[in-house]
Amino acid sequence: MTSKPNWMFLTRKYEFPASHRLFNPDWSDEENARVFRQCNNPNGHGHNYDLEVTVKGQPDPQLGMVVDIYELDVIVKRVILDRVDHKNLNLDVDFMQGLIPTAENIVWAFWQELAPKIPAPAQLARLRVVETRNNFAEYRGE
Amino acid sequence: MTSKPNWMFLTRKYEFPASHRLFNPDWSDEENARVFRQCNNPNGHGHNYDLEVTVKGQPDPQLGMVVDIYELDVIVKRVILDRVDHKNLNLDVDFMQGLIPTAENIVWAFWQELAPKIPAPAQLARLRVVETRNNFAEYRGE
Amino acid sequence: MTSKPNWMFLTRKYEFPASHRLFNPDWSDEENARVFRQCNNPNGHGHNYDLEVTVKGQPDPQLGMVVDIYELDVIVKRVILDRVDHKNLNLDVDFMQGLIPTAENIVWAFWQELAPKIPAPAQLARLRVVETRNNFAEYRGE
Amino acid sequence: MTSKPNWMFLTRKYEFPASHRLFNPDWSDEENARVFRQCNNPNGHGHNYDLEVTVKGQPDPQLGMVVDIYELDVIVKRVILDRVDHKNLNLDVDFMQGLIPTAENIVWAFWQELAPKIPAPAQLARLRVVETRNNFAEYRGE
Amino acid sequence: MTSKPNWMFLTRKYEFPASHRLFNPDWSDEENARVFRQCNNPNGHGHNYDLEVTVKGQPDPQLGMVVDIYELDVIVKRVILDRVDHKNLNLDVDFMQGLIPTAENIVWAFWQELAPKIPAPAQLARLRVVETRNNFAEYRGE
Amino acid sequence: MTSKPNWMFLTRKYEFPASHRLFNPDWSDEENARVFRQCNNPNGHGHNYDLEVTVKGQPDPQLGMVVDIYELDVIVKRVILDRVDHKNLNLDVDFMQGLIPTAENIVWAFWQELAPKIPAPAQLARLRVVETRNNFAEYRGE
Repeated sequence: MTSKPNWMFLTRKYEFPASHRLFNPDWSDEENARVFRQCNNPNGHGHNYDLEVTVKGQPDPQLGMVVDIYELDVIVKRVILDRVDHKNLNLDVDFMQGLIPTAENIVWAFWQELAPKIPAPAQLARLRVVETRNNFAEYRGE
Repeated sequence: MTSKPNWMFLTRKYEFPASHRLFNPDWSDEENARVFRQCNNPNGHGHNYDLEVTVKGQPDPQLGMVVDIYELDVIVKRVILDRVDHKNLNLDVDFMQGLIPTAENIVWAFWQELAPKIPAPAQLARLRVVETRNNFAEYRGE
Repeated sequence: MTSKPNWMFLTRKYEFPASHRLFNPDWSDEENARVFRQCNNPNGHGHNYDLEVTVKGQPDPQLGMVVDIYELDVIVKRVILDRVDHKNLNLDVDFMQGLIPTAENIVWAFWQELAPKIPAPAQLARLRVVETRNNFAEYRGE
Repeated sequence: MTSKPNWMFLTRKYEFPASHRLFNPDWSDEENARVFRQCNNPNGHGHNYDLEVTVKGQPDPQLGMVVDIYELDVIVKRVILDRVDHKNLNLDVDFMQGLIPTAENIVWAFWQELAPKIPAPAQLARLRVVETRNNFAEYRGE
Repeated sequence: MTSKPNWMFLTRKYEFPASHRLFNPDWSDEENARVFRQCNNPNGHGHNYDLEVTVKGQPDPQLGMVVDIYELDVIVKRVILDRVDHKNLNLDVDFMQGLIPTAENIVWAFWQELAPKIPAPAQLARLRVVETRNNFAEYRGE
Repeated sequence: MTSKPNWMFLTRKYEFPASHRLFNPDWSDEENARVFRQCNNPNGHGHNYDLEVTVKGQPDPQLGMVVDIYELDVIVKRVILDRVDHKNLNLDVDFMQGLIPTAENIVWAFWQELAPKIPAPAQLARLRVVETRNNFAEYRGE
């Protein structure tokens, strides 16, 4: 077995409960309620979010791993989880200020924080945020 | 097949996202933070709650059912889900006022609302509230 | 560790896809449609059923098992699965003739077939039939 | 955060129970039984199908969403679910007439119905039909 | 809401991967292979075990909890998980020496370690060890 | 419905429990313990591995299938499962000798065994090995 895969994908899943409220400050209360419906409840609601982080690369021949998963876990904890776990995504998260916290925008905000921190030569390949068992957003860097 | 089971159990699962904050108004902020830790975050956090409703009884010989599940669904929606779905359990739910919204207390509050509304001769046998994939509370009426 | 548990419970899960239709031959088409709604579709519909078989007993001191699970699997396959797997529960299953195939009645019919076949001293303790991820029936022999 | 993702993916999951039978009318009964085995049972069998609908696009800056999920749910319900939920896929579904209802063909038939109905500028990116927990088909438009 | 439940149940789930081999040292290799089949592989095999710990009691009126779950987690980690996580259950676990590591015997051994350590007035009510998605053992203290 | 999809994807999931130990024979015990941490336990540990095999192709017009799934199951059983199920991945598997059995290397080794055996015109499109509910590796042939 001498050749090597160019792109092996390794995914780690994390969980964090958080609350959020969907609303657009440029709109009236009526417009917000009409568009975001029950997700616009003034006192907010919440979810158990699943976060799936996929990195790609060649497995290191000495380790047999695309990335040191202990190191990756530490990075994801520091860069993302410590800032959103058991938090209110509208009020408590500095890097999401001004962003409507839909699943799509959460993925996008997380990507910008996390992609530069993945240890080379591994690269962030995909980020998925699962909001409910029937709804998830995903970004692949394109 | 002439005899009949005395107690057949029928369970329906429902989901609702909601936010909450654990705190005891009789305590100082420091005491609350020490006891409830991350669950005490002032702006709250949230969960996708699963609610499992188990009723017991003899299947109706004409229906083959312990309870008409369409009727049960309507009752659970009206008595519980419409009042907690996409809500803040501390601020938005009348029958939970003054209650610290732990999984145990949520189950207890739901039981008191729902048990009297189960259509006889079926009876409420068990109520389970799943808060995260690793935590759930259950009450069986004793 | 010299003492022994009186009742250790061992559960095995099995799956089988099947089709069914809910209707009561004593009723008019209108009555059936009103009561069983979409489950009354004349050409039937179907489910991936999960069957959970729980036996109880004292673990055999030489085996460390309540029941030989290989033997249990063979019995469940012969007594239940071979007769319902990929079948129409209204038309293809001899021991369910004349029974409205609700989850409750399926559990009841399976119990009567399976309970006498569990190898002593183990006993059948619980039977659960999961019809959808949000609906299951359970019988415990009482 | 001024730039925008080109392709954000948003997935919604739906469930529907249905029955089906695999057989090819051009073949003898023996040939059908040999090829489709237990899936060829004359009275059919069934599944709890999961349908995953993935759309892609740029999140609307006012909504933070690739697609209005309430609107998407209404479309999927009207175009797909109302026509297959609690139905027999061989007999009850007009747009699947003449099609052997394998998971692959179900995906293909659903794609042709649904792709033209996705509200622009979002596009249908992937359709997955999960037949059992161990079997699913997927199409990505290529 | 002045009355109180007598028995509220609170369950926490934990996971640990471990390896094991089923064999009885009193038997010949042939007898072991015949009885335990593939589970008797001399170099062992392994599982991702799920451990469900259920305690019962009255919720503390100040906390709204049957047990302080942070305290429970610390106890389960110290008494069980630190001793079995990423371990070989035949060779590495002192309190399981001489025990055939079936799911039943694992539950039994865990119960004897854990039951005396549950903080009063809560009591251990149920212990479940899930070995595969189709097999689990459960003990309720009787 | 006259046109045809070029690439329809069909996925089958399989499970197998196995044990493994991560270590690099070129390193000292200290170096191995430092890098692989708890996964380096000398007596090994184990997992319930899920294997997802995805093939792609055009559905056969007579079968409505990308691949005969009965045939695929037989091939995966013979080529992979019979050699790793209930085995020690370090000691018992000929085609993994000399390979550190990380999820990435397991995927890579399985791909080389399985890809040449997929019945044409179907092709192996993706292989995923799920090690725990929070960790999986995936290879797509590039």
